[in-house]
Amino acid sequence: MALIVMKFGGSSVADSEKIKHVAGKIIAKKKGGNKIVVVVSAPGDMTDDLITMSEKITSEPNPREMDLLLSTGEQVSISLLAMAIQSMGHGAVALTGPQAGIFTDSEHLKARVEKIIPKKIFSFLDKGNIVIVAGFQGLNPNNDIATLGRGGSDLTAVALAAQMEANICEIYTDVEGVFTTDPRVVKDATKIDTISYEEMLEMAGSGAQVMQARSIEVAKKYGIEIHVRSTFSEKEGTYIVSEEKIGRKKMEALMVSAVTFDKNQVKFSLIDLPDIPGMAAKIFGSLAKLGINVDMIIQSAALDKKNDISFTVSKADLKRTQMKIDQLAKELKAQSVVCDEHVAKVSVVGVGMKSHAGVASKMFEILAKNDINIEMISTSEIKVSCVIDEVDLNKALAELHKGFKLNKK
Amino acid sequence: MALIVMKFGGSSVADSEKIKHVAGKIIAKKKGGNKIVVVVSAPGDMTDDLITMSEKITSEPNPREMDLLLSTGEQVSISLLAMAIQSMGHGAVALTGPQAGIFTDSEHLKARVEKIIPKKIFSFLDKGNIVIVAGFQGLNPNNDIATLGRGGSDLTAVALAAQMEANICEIYTDVEGVFTTDPRVVKDATKIDTISYEEMLEMAGSGAQVMQARSIEVAKKYGIEIHVRSTFSEKEGTYIVSEEKIGRKKMEALMVSAVTFDKNQVKFSLIDLPDIPGMAAKIFGSLAKLGINVDMIIQSAALDKKNDISFTVSKADLKRTQMKIDQLAKELKAQSVVCDEHVAKVSVVGVGMKSHAGVASKMFEILAKNDINIEMISTSEIKVSCVIDEVDLNKALAELHKGFKLNKK
Repeated sequence: MALIVMKFGGSSVADSEKIKHVAGKIIAKKKGGNKIVVVVSAPGDMTDDLITMSEKITSEPNPREMDLLLSTGEQVSISLLAMAIQSMGHGAVALTGPQAGIFTDSEHLKARVEKIIPKKIFSFLDKGNIVIVAGFQGLNPNNDIATLGRGGSDLTAVALAAQMEANICEIYTDVEGVFTTDPRVVKDATKIDTISYEEMLEMAGSGAQVMQARSIEVAKKYGIEIHVRSTFSEKEGTYIVSEEKIGRKKMEALMVSAVTFDKNQVKFSLIDLPDIPGMAAKIFGSLAKLGINVDMIIQSAALDKKNDISFTVSKADLKRTQMKIDQLAKELKAQSVVCDEHVAKVSVVGVGMKSHAGVASKMFEILAKNDINIEMISTSEIKVSCVIDEVDLNKALAELHKGFKLNKK
Repeated sequence: MALIVMKFGGSSVADSEKIKHVAGKIIAKKKGGNKIVVVVSAPGDMTDDLITMSEKITSEPNPREMDLLLSTGEQVSISLLAMAIQSMGHGAVALTGPQAGIFTDSEHLKARVEKIIPKKIFSFLDKGNIVIVAGFQGLNPNNDIATLGRGGSDLTAVALAAQMEANICEIYTDVEGVFTTDPRVVKDATKIDTISYEEMLEMAGSGAQVMQARSIEVAKKYGIEIHVRSTFSEKEGTYIVSEEKIGRKKMEALMVSAVTFDKNQVKFSLIDLPDIPGMAAKIFGSLAKLGINVDMIIQSAALDKKNDISFTVSKADLKRTQMKIDQLAKELKAQSVVCDEHVAKVSVVGVGMKSHAGVASKMFEILAKNDINIEMISTSEIKVSCVIDEVDLNKALAELHKGFKLNKK
């Protein structure tokens, strides 16, 4: 008898019809002879509605009370989903994060899961129940409700699967799986059948919004197989597994598994900085202190004892970065600061590039052949990223997708 | 330093403006040098909205999950109210019923409060905080959330005030207090300054909707003074206190304090029952088994070994009563059953009638003088009720109000 964790996102439980549909899917899986733990997000736009309510009260809500407010969303969906399953004649029990034995650290709004004691879940499972757990929340050391931040419900599902040694963690969403690139941009995009944790991590960091990196990291650490699939179809989606498993499945991996992009970046350049040691440390230390995440960095070589430093940050951090950098430019005697909002990052990702030399040079070649200028480059073991002009993005995606043979056959 | 429990109903926290207004009132009371515990209901129509959601899923929701769903309403209002107070620069902590140490029995949807351990509340108060507690909910012996049923938030407030030995429990609502009769019906109705627990209990039982009987019973048992007043005015409302306190305040009590009515009744009559012992027991035992609450009963004296039994039930029980009574009428060989939906109950209430003889006869006289036929009568130590034809209700209210000198001076 397999133990399966099924996770449904907010769009899957947005109204009563959808909740009943999800209940039917869960019961079918139970009837297949499995023990089922379900994790649910808040219905539809409820979390946004709760945030709007708080904004009408204050622009700086206390994090403890904000968590108390936000956690009601998942409490509503677990209750309704349990009722739906019960009304179809099957035993079901809804548990809040605290009731399910999920314990967090004391950080509100972005708590980390510290431990899970699934005693209550196991006891309800043993009595034949489907157990429905509120995603995104747990109990902190003060006995207060804490929420886990972005991607929190996925994290709840993966962490429960890890702690309970589930056979698989199924992530149900409104897309059919992980694609070689965004199908809304490149029509020929194909669904990936199997992908490694490492590739998914690089994709999450390159703007693909399927799953947050933190959940994939936990899955990788505990070797939990994830199946990302559609709530509204019976088709197989994408399996996220270890590289070894992929190795066994495919004798010869593709050079590149996917092409991803991120339009949410801004490029800053500090021009003509004096070439004195410690410049970079000073700049990026100051930004880190403000909690600003810097993505890519390049520093040009200098013959005349002057050099340029360019870096990218997320658009949300634009204003705060601008203020700090203007101040630093004066202090450090840079000639000028250039800010470019019209950039995009395009990346090719794939474990295949470990054994295939020349992925980076092939990428540069494809871009060059199409007159696309590369402004910045960064590479990791299984990813190459280039910052280009925003207007070239769609062409770059299409050409890279075709060039690396990811198109539908 | 006084300890004050302030309770705000759903209409007082229906939107962000009202929540801010309530926050202002609470802070003003705190600045008056008091320790403040606040109890809040769910905002506006939220409880009804949650019930509608569940109805779209199933007509018979599991009570455990229903309580989990319903309890989110108060969790939303305590969070928002705490944020509002905090944003005005005062310390506030929101606590759910379970966090506040409110423990119930294991009955869902209409749980009884078994005990209150206000350790956490006292500790937050001692640090100078305003403590905001979710009304209507507590933790049951299974560590599940249970709701207290109708009037549950008032009960939370009064029970907390009792356990914490508060100086007073203020119930803020959308009316200015308790009136001598319904001001929408009788223009001359006046606000009652002080009323006894016993009178309020009789009024609650006679259709006046200000507070549920169960909260008044707890207040009476523990001698907690209640002040019912408006959220939207600074005027004093109505104090609900013990008879002894009233005695000290007023040398001579009025004969009657209020005239109340209940249009939610139906009268059933079983005509020509054989006069055999055990008839009444058989009839009312059967209704009790169905959970049908019978209000007034009269049995006519019989010379010919036949008699009639009439009784009233609430309109909500009409259908179920009709079915059972038709069946019993056959079984017991009654001649016929008459059901009258067009009746109303009018009552005069007042501790003064203990020392003033003739309240009942004066009531009958006033009704007779106005050609109002009395169909049924019941009396208690401080209340006289008559069932009359619905069409006569407004006239009866006005004349009794005037006759017992309750009109504005």
